[in-house]
Formats: sequence, structure tokens, C-alpha cells
Amino acid sequence: MRGMVEPQAKSEKRVVVVGVGLIGGSVAAAVRHRLPDCQVVGIGRCEQRLQAAADAGLLTGWATDVTSEMLSGRCVVVVCLPVHLIATHVRRIAEKASDDVLITDAGSVKAVICDAVNEHEAASRLFVGAHPIAGGEQGGFEHADADLFHDKVCVVVAGDATSARKPLVHRTRHFWQHLGCRIVDMTADEHDRVLALTSHLPHLMAAVTTTVAGTDNLSLTGSGFRDATRIAAGDAELWTAIMAGNRASVIAAIGRAEETLADYRKALEQQNDERLLELLATAAECRRKLSS
Amino acid sequence: MRGMVEPQAKSEKRVVVVGVGLIGGSVAAAVRHRLPDCQVVGIGRCEQRLQAAADAGLLTGWATDVTSEMLSGRCVVVVCLPVHLIATHVRRIAEKASDDVLITDAGSVKAVICDAVNEHEAASRLFVGAHPIAGGEQGGFEHADADLFHDKVCVVVAGDATSARKPLVHRTRHFWQHLGCRIVDMTADEHDRVLALTSHLPHLMAAVTTTVAGTDNLSLTGSGFRDATRIAAGDAELWTAIMAGNRASVIAAIGRAEETLADYRKALEQQNDERLLELLATAAECRRKLSS
Repeated sequence: MRGMVEPQAKSEKRVVVVGVGLIGGSVAAAVRHRLPDCQVVGIGRCEQRLQAAADAGLLTGWATDVTSEMLSGRCVVVVCLPVHLIATHVRRIAEKASDDVLITDAGSVKAVICDAVNEHEAASRLFVGAHPIAGGEQGGFEHADADLFHDKVCVVVAGDATSARKPLVHRTRHFWQHLGCRIVDMTADEHDRVLALTSHLPHLMAAVTTTVAGTDNLSLTGSGFRDATRIAAGDAELWTAIMAGNRASVIAAIGRAEETLADYRKALEQQNDERLLELLATAAECRRKLSS
Repeated sequence: MRGMVEPQAKSEKRVVVVGVGLIGGSVAAAVRHRLPDCQVVGIGRCEQRLQAAADAGLLTGWATDVTSEMLSGRCVVVVCLPVHLIATHVRRIAEKASDDVLITDAGSVKAVICDAVNEHEAASRLFVGAHPIAGGEQGGFEHADADLFHDKVCVVVAGDATSARKPLVHRTRHFWQHLGCRIVDMTADEHDRVLALTSHLPHLMAAVTTTVAGTDNLSLTGSGFRDATRIAAGDAELWTAIMAGNRASVIAAIGRAEETLADYRKALEQQNDERLLELLATAAECRRKLSS
């Protein structure tokens, strides 16, 4: 299987990265590093930033918009924009793309994107949603890292892969594999439900912890606080779009957090230290199943 | 000032570490490293563990209980036990100690300890509470680190330092300074109120985040989740004692977290993305005031 499919990914001649920030820049860096014969074209709004990314060795070319010429022949378009912009761009790109173009994305939510893309005939034919679970608090291609995706899980939304769609789904898996990812197939809804628990709620909890501690007390924080709240420094606009794009699951996750936090409060109020120990031991046991 | 006081700390001839776990072991390691002429006596329950700590170079001697002989002449006793055991041990130690013994501790709560110690005449005369804000999820002297306290804040509870008590408070400050700490003077109540926000609540929030995510979804977590929940792996018994030892402040901190989390839920439910952005931006701005 592996021998059969590797040449596929290696045969990509051009990767178009739409949005050259931390994720887009890292996709570009990884492609440059791992598929050295492949063109990497960056698409963005700001010419100076794009030229700087090219000067940094991330891009072999750039433009402020995709063109039909750029999207003719075999190429992969990776849309690395804030989640609320992805579907619109996928649809626009699909309208200009030839039939052997694959469009994928790196958005942290999947259902709203896949649903909006699927309403559009050309886009639904060329698009396979993905989410490499990798990132950082600091945006911008300056923090791009060719190894950002190394050994990270990438969720691929295969959908009900009809035989016509199967090669495209395979191609998507192998593209992300070539950047270093381990592939996990999920439906968009399943992805969003799980990521609400493993990423979106943790972000909110870190934000709440930070806000409640306040700036006056930062000198009395240790490494535990720094670790626990690091993600809260992430770009607020990007995260607003992510939360809004996964509203129902995030609200449900908050509800579960509220219940669990209330369990702790009640145990403390009732001086039920046995229950408090039980709650903390359950969490510690769960956390120890994960590497530090 | 510095020239006047350094010889004081350097003139300590013996440090008795009661409880040779991560913190006690690190106190021992730091003393061995920074005050090489000083004896370091470890006190613990398990002879094999104490001998192993001595074999590891942390201790120059050990015993399963303190003795009057050990506590005669100038020495510092550092009580590094779980917080609910500290006051009792301080009182027992004070009964055996000569007048030039300093007793300090490393407990994460201060008011319950200082109050209990102050009810005891001999103990209140010899004890100055402290809290070096340093630690780790993994207990045991095997994880001891001579540099654990390097550049970390150590809160010293000077109390209403009467002229008779001042030398003892000075000596405490300089002892912890010699282990690498930066000293911050606070009252016990102020310490507990602030640490509820900067340490105890963050631990609970990380525990809640971990529990809500559950073990089934760990493969879909990234580095953000790992960082945000790392502290939740800490010893549940130690943390139960800490929360119970700072009950009122922790309950108040949970209340504030519940309110803030509800703000996020309401913003999401009301589709008020402007408010959501405002909340996330406030948290991000606050967190960015702290180094990563």
C-alpha cells in the first residue's frame, strides 16, 4: 500500500498555500523540506509579507489571489485561513480549478466548513477537509516550522467516500502524511464534538484561569500556572471564529465543565475531603495516561 | 545589608529537612550545592528511602525522627511535609529544639499552618512560615533538583515582626535566598488569597479540563492540551490537603471562575461574538504580560 501511494504524494508538482501565517508557513516549510522539487506558491493579502516569506525560503512564488493558470494541472491547494473564511475561499478556488486539483484545509472546526463547501458542486468535488492538530500561541510565518506536523495527528474528513471520491481522499491522506502527520479518519461532526473537549474547552478554561488570576498577581505564579495558561495567549480573533464555528459542541463542553467545577465547589463547601480526593485522583489518573 | 547578612546564612552548620520528597530533596540538594560545609540531615518514615537519598548525595545523615541532640545549637529545620501535617510537626520539633533553632516550612498554604503554630508558645517563637513557589508533578527525591528554587519567588510570612522576632525573619529570608529564591513578604491571609488564584484554582481548572476530555479522546489532544493539563497529574492527596487548607479562598476563586465561564457560555448562546472576542482578548492580553 505504502509503495503504491507514496509516488502519488511525491508527484505533486505544486502546492498553493492560501494564508501564510504560522500554519500556512509551516505547511510551506514542510513541503519545501520534504518535497524539494515541488513549487510552493503563497497567497495572501500583503505583498511585503509574502515577499518576506519567500525571502525566508518558504515560498517559490506568491500572488495576492489565486489564478486559473495557477490551478491548472495537478496541484494541492491548502487553505490555512481563519476558520470563518475557509469555506468561501474553497468555493472561489474551486471555480477556477481544473479537475485534478485537490483542495484541503487546516481548519480547527470541520462541520460548518464541510457543510458550506458541500452546497457547492465544484467545491464539493475537489475538497477534502483536514485538521492537523498542531499549532502555537505565536502567529505569523516567522514562527513557521518545517517539523510542526511531525508525528502530529491530522484528522481527515473522508465523508461518505464514494468510489469517485476515494482517490481524492487517499491523496489528501498522503499529502498530510508527507508533512509528517499521522492520519485519523473522522466525520466532521465527530471531529467537532471531540475537539470541543480536547482543544476548544481547554482554551476557554485557560482563558478563565488567566482572567480570574488577573495581572496584579502574576509575580506569584509558578511554572504550573505558566503551562496551564499558555494557550490563552493565542490570537483572540482566530479563537472567536473557532468557538463560534463549533458553537453547540463548545456550549455542551462548557456545561460539562460547569458541572464538574460545581462538584469541586460542593465537596469543598461540604468539607467532604474524601470526595475532593476522589475527584482529584480521577483527574490525575486520566492525565497520567498522557505523556508529560 | 547584603554583606552583613550573608555570613549569617553561611554560618548555618546544620539543616534538618523533615520530609525528603521532591521539595525536601531539592532543599537538601540546594544546601549541599550552595553551602557545602553544612550538614544536611533528612528525617522521614522509611529507612530505605532515606538511605537511598543519602546514597544519592542529598543527605549527610538521616533519622526517622528528630532528636534534641540534632536540634541543639544553631540549625535550620525545614518542614517539607504535606500541608496538613506541617503544624503538628513544627510544634513537636519546637519542643525539642534549643533557642537558636529556626524552623521554617515550604507549605503551599500559610494561614492554617501559622495559626496552629502560633497557638504554641515554643513553636511560635522559633517558626517563620515560607512558601517557595516551585515544584513539579512528579514527587519523590529522585526528581530533586538543586536548582529548583533558582530565581523562584519565596513568600515569607514575617508576621508582625517584633524586634525580638526580626533576626529570625531575616535569617529565614537569607536561608531561602541562599537556595536561589527571590523573597516576597506577605501576610498568611494575603498569601492564601493570592495563591488560591494563581495556583489552587489553576490546578482545579486543569483537573476539570482533563476529566471532561476523558481518556477516550487523548489521541486527539495537542501540545496545548498537554501544557494546560500537566499540573492535573500532581499527587491527589497533597492537593486535597492544599485545597482543604485554603478552603474559603479556593471556594471564592471557584465562584469567580464559574462566573467567568458563564460569561463565555452566555456569549456563545446569545451568538454575541463581539462579547466572546472581548473576553478572549482580555485573557490573551493578560497572559501576554507573563513570559511564555
